Amino acid sequence: MSRHPDERLAQLTELFASLPGIGPKSAARIVTDLLVQRPDVGRALSRALADTLQSVSRCPCCNTLTTEGLCPTCADAERDKSVICVVETPADQLAIESSVAYRGSYFVLMGRVNPMNGVGPKELGVDRLIARAKVAGVREIVIATSYTAEGETTAHMLLTTLKKYVPDVRVTRLARGLPAGIEIEFTDAATISAAILDRQAKG
Amino acid sequence: MSRHPDERLAQLTELFASLPGIGPKSAARIVTDLLVQRPDVGRALSRALADTLQSVSRCPCCNTLTTEGLCPTCADAERDKSVICVVETPADQLAIESSVAYRGSYFVLMGRVNPMNGVGPKELGVDRLIARAKVAGVREIVIATSYTAEGETTAHMLLTTLKKYVPDVRVTRLARGLPAGIEIEFTDAATISAAILDRQAKG
Repeated sequence: MSRHPDERLAQLTELFASLPGIGPKSAARIVTDLLVQRPDVGRALSRALADTLQSVSRCPCCNTLTTEGLCPTCADAERDKSVICVVETPADQLAIESSVAYRGSYFVLMGRVNPMNGVGPKELGVDRLIARAKVAGVREIVIATSYTAEGETTAHMLLTTLKKYVPDVRVTRLARGLPAGIEIEFTDAATISAAILDRQAKG
Repeated sequence: MSRHPDERLAQLTELFASLPGIGPKSAARIVTDLLVQRPDVGRALSRALADTLQSVSRCPCCNTLTTEGLCPTCADAERDKSVICVVETPADQLAIESSVAYRGSYFVLMGRVNPMNGVGPKELGVDRLIARAKVAGVREIVIATSYTAEGETTAHMLLTTLKKYVPDVRVTRLARGLPAGIEIEFTDAATISAAILDRQAKG
């Protein structure tokens, strides 16, 4: 697609097109939407983005993004602080919250191990996770990284580090297996293989 | 997906999710990208959006969005001002520019006829198009609306209005027919039907 002939509009479109998941055509539609149909939303977005960039920081307890010092999840007294679930991103944490199957606390790595980009245990704040795990009363750490190559590498790094520094804390990993609502016929071989290896005794 | 527990981050995510083509998961990824990986891009986007909203207006000649008074296309002395191509949106104009087959001027409706939403000739600035068509030297108006229901309605409205007020100006419509690079086998019946009706004598 040609570049917008108006320089400012072209720059604004390119900024939107640089965001993850947005191509040049979507970016052009977004710019028209915000400038013509909904300028009030455009102003609100500009303001919310500037304000949040100014006030955002990392939660001192779980490392997630927060604009309120201690994040609402860590500040929640109802949460079971004896279990820490380690996730890669805030989005992963939200997905686990949606399941309503977990009421413990979290630690958000804000990334995964990636030696090519210089992301290792230090960048992921693993020393702070260990410090928290050493607090009396922590009895389990659930590793909830994805079953992808990078997620597995991250899980392996966490497992060896935790076993070394907090050997008394139980370390678990989210179960692998068949996803809900998908027929076995259409499930990939790696998932079926994992479901067979980790099969559960019943009855 | 659960709502982000931090109120400001939840609001910022919802603003991004309200943009065309962005769902809640993409919005969450964009927010993390702008707050963690690329805060400089976040600041640039907030500033560019605010500045553009402040300075944007409609080109007095072709009705498109511009931040510079007369838009660069209308200000271009090399353009053939005797032909006016009428398009629905700036994105349509960019697509036509990409084809490099047209060197005339434009009129951008910034929408299409939609009686349900109260969008008619007045909202699309058709009176200004007629005023421009009446200028000595304008010999052709190319209607380049899409071959969709709304685009066809808009084309019909333009055709009858132009025939009434500027009967001496030639009015044309972009050719219908087979798209380039697509096999006939996979082309829809309406397009094939149009290609047969509008077939061209050769040789």
